[in-house]
Amino acid sequence: MAATNKVFVAIIGAGGVGKCFLSQFEALSKRRPTPKLSLCYISTSKKALFSGDYSVATENVLQELAASTKSPLDLPQVADYLAAAPSKVILVDNTSSQDVADSYPLFLSRGISIVTPNKKAFSGSYKLWQDIFTAAATSGAKVYHESSVGAGLPVISTLKDLVETGDEVTKIEGVFSGTMSFLFNSFAPVEGSGGQWSAEVKRAKELGYTEPDPRDDLNGLDVARKLTILARLAGLPVESPTSFPVQSLIPKELESVASGDEFLQRLPEFDSQMEETKSAAEKQGKVVRFVGSIDVGTKAVKVGLETFDKSHPIAALKGSDNIISFYTKRYGANPLIIQGAGAGGEVTAMGVTSDLIKVLSQIS
Amino acid sequence: MAATNKVFVAIIGAGGVGKCFLSQFEALSKRRPTPKLSLCYISTSKKALFSGDYSVATENVLQELAASTKSPLDLPQVADYLAAAPSKVILVDNTSSQDVADSYPLFLSRGISIVTPNKKAFSGSYKLWQDIFTAAATSGAKVYHESSVGAGLPVISTLKDLVETGDEVTKIEGVFSGTMSFLFNSFAPVEGSGGQWSAEVKRAKELGYTEPDPRDDLNGLDVARKLTILARLAGLPVESPTSFPVQSLIPKELESVASGDEFLQRLPEFDSQMEETKSAAEKQGKVVRFVGSIDVGTKAVKVGLETFDKSHPIAALKGSDNIISFYTKRYGANPLIIQGAGAGGEVTAMGVTSDLIKVLSQIS
Repeated sequence: MAATNKVFVAIIGAGGVGKCFLSQFEALSKRRPTPKLSLCYISTSKKALFSGDYSVATENVLQELAASTKSPLDLPQVADYLAAAPSKVILVDNTSSQDVADSYPLFLSRGISIVTPNKKAFSGSYKLWQDIFTAAATSGAKVYHESSVGAGLPVISTLKDLVETGDEVTKIEGVFSGTMSFLFNSFAPVEGSGGQWSAEVKRAKELGYTEPDPRDDLNGLDVARKLTILARLAGLPVESPTSFPVQSLIPKELESVASGDEFLQRLPEFDSQMEETKSAAEKQGKVVRFVGSIDVGTKAVKVGLETFDKSHPIAALKGSDNIISFYTKRYGANPLIIQGAGAGGEVTAMGVTSDLIKVLSQIS
Repeated sequence: MAATNKVFVAIIGAGGVGKCFLSQFEALSKRRPTPKLSLCYISTSKKALFSGDYSVATENVLQELAASTKSPLDLPQVADYLAAAPSKVILVDNTSSQDVADSYPLFLSRGISIVTPNKKAFSGSYKLWQDIFTAAATSGAKVYHESSVGAGLPVISTLKDLVETGDEVTKIEGVFSGTMSFLFNSFAPVEGSGGQWSAEVKRAKELGYTEPDPRDDLNGLDVARKLTILARLAGLPVESPTSFPVQSLIPKELESVASGDEFLQRLPEFDSQMEETKSAAEKQGKVVRFVGSIDVGTKAVKVGLETFDKSHPIAALKGSDNIISFYTKRYGANPLIIQGAGAGGEVTAMGVTSDLIKVLSQIS
């Protein structure tokens, strides 16, 4: 273990998660004097802060960034700049950019470790996944992405621990989307009759629980990306998030309407479909939920509506919580379950910060 | 990061958990060729295997150990032997021995890392806790003890992540004993009337869910030890597992009867007490459970019977599962919950193996 007393940190992205991370990072730097964490680069899509001596002040960094006259470097330039730093470097990617994700193999091959909540890198093509982990294995750089599934919940670390200690994961099942959790807990609650589907979608958007265009949640792709990541960690070489069945909750007729607003306006026309699904479940004493599941043995990955007994932990979920159940040989009939908020700036940033601490413990 | 290509492993204890660990360790050594994991010492209370060249074959190690003519070294001798090894050393303590626990500061101060499920080291006197972590901080040796609470469930790593990333843990609550979980899930189930208390205790013992003398579970000390560990990790300097209120389920009159068998024989005399507790809860539509809780703000730690709504996750627990809820500032009203088997050789050993992997990633 080399006595590295300084580690450089580069940050791309200063949106919702990025801002929360910055405040956690500043507090961490004060709490842990060794190794000294030194910000050397930060950028948004339009602005950047960096300097020839690799020193960027962390106080008022957002104001400094807004006032900066520098544009962000191209990604290969960022790699050159960071690879030339006089100590180890960790890149924090707080974007959801495919371009940044595509550059991970380049960064890693140059010895730059990465921590990120960006799902794109790990749920894109299987080739990118392989390139990322091959580059990391070759250079010794680390790559951690806890917040790419379930935000700060210990989902990825737990699955890795199960696999690395030789347990046999047989099935993973859960509610992986805070938006879907909120929608179905309101639409088809365990007690009471719940609201009208289109009204619940509208309310979720108003409360900030959906993407600007709710179709970006309802198409199931976000859940499919998370399932892709977990399936790969469990050993299945899933080609992409579109290579297995994903049920979209967007009525075909509304797939191509111009805007999210028009979509919301016309959604009530299709309420009867969802109402039928809910009634059919109720007749069996069950509730409907939007879940993802991975059957490792049969290699079946799927995302969509399923019904659950009202006493099932998935049915009893509250608010916008996620729940993830790991069925394994060692754990037997009762799964290992992790539950809690799976979205939100602070808890997502927490997963990134805790990954940063893990990388620090390994490279310094 | 030094290119250490060999790490020595010393193991004390080859009982239930120890045997499961050995098989996981052997599989791990084959799966991960780098760094080479080299067994250099293994002992039970009566026998030991070690050699001048620090090489102990891992094949048929239990038979070799049984056939060995060597007695275990004294703990200071073990420390001398390991400190003189020609590469880094990890000591795996698979005992529940207070003596071994008391030697952790010695091992750590000599640069020997420790992984263990042994609760005694972390739930004994607060001075021992301080000595352990001071020794580790000074020498740089690592100490991990995931399986000391909830076996392989990611309880300690999650609490550490919350604290280290700057979240404010306000309350920890849960069912921390597989035995107590099984007893109360059978005695006071959410549906149905459940069994007679003394009969359930007898059945639990017959199924191997209790200690040889069930009083060692019913006195609450095992749960108190786990609460002590979590409270300290959350920042409370709890003096010992007897320095806060712990409700014992052993009737006063049976505390001093000679044997566990006599205890079981006389326990039915006291069934009416437990039956009253159950009925009182039922009248409120609730069930009774044996839980531990830590209120970080008021520094109140307690262990004992509490009642819960039938829809509460603690009430809905199954089999001998544990459940641990972390209430924090970031997670808000809905806690981060971890649930699953919290006892058993394989899952306990899994926590030890995963700690070993974490230490390896940091020292090699």
